[in-house]
Amino acid sequence: MTSDSIDVLYEFPKGVDPETHGRMLAIGQTVGSFHPDQVVRFTRWMGVLEEISTSDDGRGRARVRFPAGNVSGDLGSLLVMILGKYSLAGPVRILSLELPKTYGTRGRFGMEGLRALTGVRNRPLFMGIFKPSLGLAPSDFAEILREVGMAGLDLIKDDEILPDTETSTALSRLLACRPVLDEIRGATGREMLYAVTLSGRADQLIDQARRLRDAGANAYLLSPVAYGFSVMEALASHPDTDLPIFAHPAMAGALGGSPDYGFDYRVLLGSLMVHGGADAVLYPTAAGSLPISAEVERGLKELLVREGLAPVPSAGLHPGALPRFLARGERHVILNAGTGLMDHPHGPGAGVHAFFEAYRRYENGEPMDLHSVPDGPLRQAILKWGP
Amino acid sequence: MTSDSIDVLYEFPKGVDPETHGRMLAIGQTVGSFHPDQVVRFTRWMGVLEEISTSDDGRGRARVRFPAGNVSGDLGSLLVMILGKYSLAGPVRILSLELPKTYGTRGRFGMEGLRALTGVRNRPLFMGIFKPSLGLAPSDFAEILREVGMAGLDLIKDDEILPDTETSTALSRLLACRPVLDEIRGATGREMLYAVTLSGRADQLIDQARRLRDAGANAYLLSPVAYGFSVMEALASHPDTDLPIFAHPAMAGALGGSPDYGFDYRVLLGSLMVHGGADAVLYPTAAGSLPISAEVERGLKELLVREGLAPVPSAGLHPGALPRFLARGERHVILNAGTGLMDHPHGPGAGVHAFFEAYRRYENGEPMDLHSVPDGPLRQAILKWGP
Repeated sequence: MTSDSIDVLYEFPKGVDPETHGRMLAIGQTVGSFHPDQVVRFTRWMGVLEEISTSDDGRGRARVRFPAGNVSGDLGSLLVMILGKYSLAGPVRILSLELPKTYGTRGRFGMEGLRALTGVRNRPLFMGIFKPSLGLAPSDFAEILREVGMAGLDLIKDDEILPDTETSTALSRLLACRPVLDEIRGATGREMLYAVTLSGRADQLIDQARRLRDAGANAYLLSPVAYGFSVMEALASHPDTDLPIFAHPAMAGALGGSPDYGFDYRVLLGSLMVHGGADAVLYPTAAGSLPISAEVERGLKELLVREGLAPVPSAGLHPGALPRFLARGERHVILNAGTGLMDHPHGPGAGVHAFFEAYRRYENGEPMDLHSVPDGPLRQAILKWGP
Repeated sequence: MTSDSIDVLYEFPKGVDPETHGRMLAIGQTVGSFHPDQVVRFTRWMGVLEEISTSDDGRGRARVRFPAGNVSGDLGSLLVMILGKYSLAGPVRILSLELPKTYGTRGRFGMEGLRALTGVRNRPLFMGIFKPSLGLAPSDFAEILREVGMAGLDLIKDDEILPDTETSTALSRLLACRPVLDEIRGATGREMLYAVTLSGRADQLIDQARRLRDAGANAYLLSPVAYGFSVMEALASHPDTDLPIFAHPAMAGALGGSPDYGFDYRVLLGSLMVHGGADAVLYPTAAGSLPISAEVERGLKELLVREGLAPVPSAGLHPGALPRFLARGERHVILNAGTGLMDHPHGPGAGVHAFFEAYRRYENGEPMDLHSVPDGPLRQAILKWGP
């Protein structure tokens, strides 16, 4: 591909001819139908079927090159071009997407930015999720935050299912938690990050994000598949919303789970997040027994790391399971735990201690079984959740 | 359901137990896990598995009622709740979605609003699509517009794959076309609507929509599945973007085409459009040989009509095919044609005349075959595209 082209690898179910359908995509999604005497005039706008191939299991594939000038430099018009109307004609799955390096919107922080903000340099970052979430008052969040922050947790985030409700809004949570973040900084010398859930219509969401930043927020949580990548792009580019964005994969299964439709997760949670302005990306992990192949997960993580984003493998992490989520010596990752931290038998603070203890033992090559782990938070966690 | 609840009917592939998974959705997408002593406190926030059933072909179904207070009144938080994280756990498809009447954002125009703007009262509206689109200069659009407008076309829209490009932007097209719309009004006494394609990051798109309106635009075209329903909600609610929204189904196949994942089209192109602020909805039609069942299409259209939106069955319409797209006497519909109008052998104006001639014959019960249709635009169209 050239710097002014967009390369897409499509895969079709068996029985669909990749040449015919690759051409339908190349032409139908660009110049449409046209009279032969117009060919020269419209050549510049035409997609090109570059090659067809067959997967190991016999599915047809087509690689199509689109002119980057056909789109507006944003993800919305990109999605309309590469999938758009064609998607209504039958099953097709996008396996890979290569964009010009600066296409779309790039996150302003990434893993290095998160390290700079938190001051954590030489180990993975540890993140917690407020659990439960719906029904808690702002003061409840503040109390939990104090406990995990004083115990040394690096980051915390809202549950993605906690938008603005009668009992707590993003702003009321932030206002209750901001003084606690300051306390934690006073006590530990470190700025803890709190990614607060953004919700609402796009205009309200963007306004809310500005107000939150003005009130001292230091990170956002957004579900771009549900809200639109265009909304994440807006947040990631405006000077008034200059905070790290944690992208949650809510609804991603509807677009990435099917073998026949939508996107490979490496595109949906990889390329589109990279070019959509995310700084950190939560994703399902085979270690947590979600249906994602180890190959796809590895490719997704490699892509995020290569592009400087923070990978956040999620779902099912508890202290004893840490070795399954982390290669030894691996640092470029955020370990994210909800109930596996918050529901520790001795409380969320003990959950944090259990994680750090697990990390230390693992890095030192010490065994994690109950015969070896001494009494304390990690042992209590393993007794509850197993290794 | 009650006015403060959100009812969702889920369907799972065979082999997935609807009771187990219905409960996972009801609990996991609301209160998550919690300690038994917290049950009373969180009851208000808990989803309820109302009933399970089995489809005719043996798929399990679960109806779940969610408290409306769990979400922010917008479509983004709704999607995070009803599908969200669960979507990563395995295949599930949303068959129906019942929302409180005022949930989300309602379009400000609908079919009646479009009738009021165009002054067309007693027949279907006829809409054309600028074809080709990429590569044309603004003056080319103006020229086509003049021809079809003077011939009596009610509405025209950009191709959805035509965002802001080097050759034409939404604003440059509008500036070239606005004087022509005025000419057409002068000549015919009617305001023709031109739905111009919106593109860009959410904030830019909303700003662009305002600028377009200030410059005399009278309708928008948006692809909400690609850009985010939250963006459509923003447009549909702000006073500065008070124009009818034509919602294009680009990318909808990726979320609605699979039998196992995502949404039934009646939800994706029906309920979510109704509560997302659309005024008119383009959708694939079996008449145009796209893979949508007649039952789903009928249900979708009924829903749009019931809610006052304008249904726009699309793809494959040409003058001779009109009887397949329209029940005799049906008025609550917008007939939308691209190449089937623009590529008429005698030009776009003749294409418009052919459509009106076809409509008149059809309504009068006159046959459409070549033996009966006299020489003229309709006959030329049938000679090219068939009946």
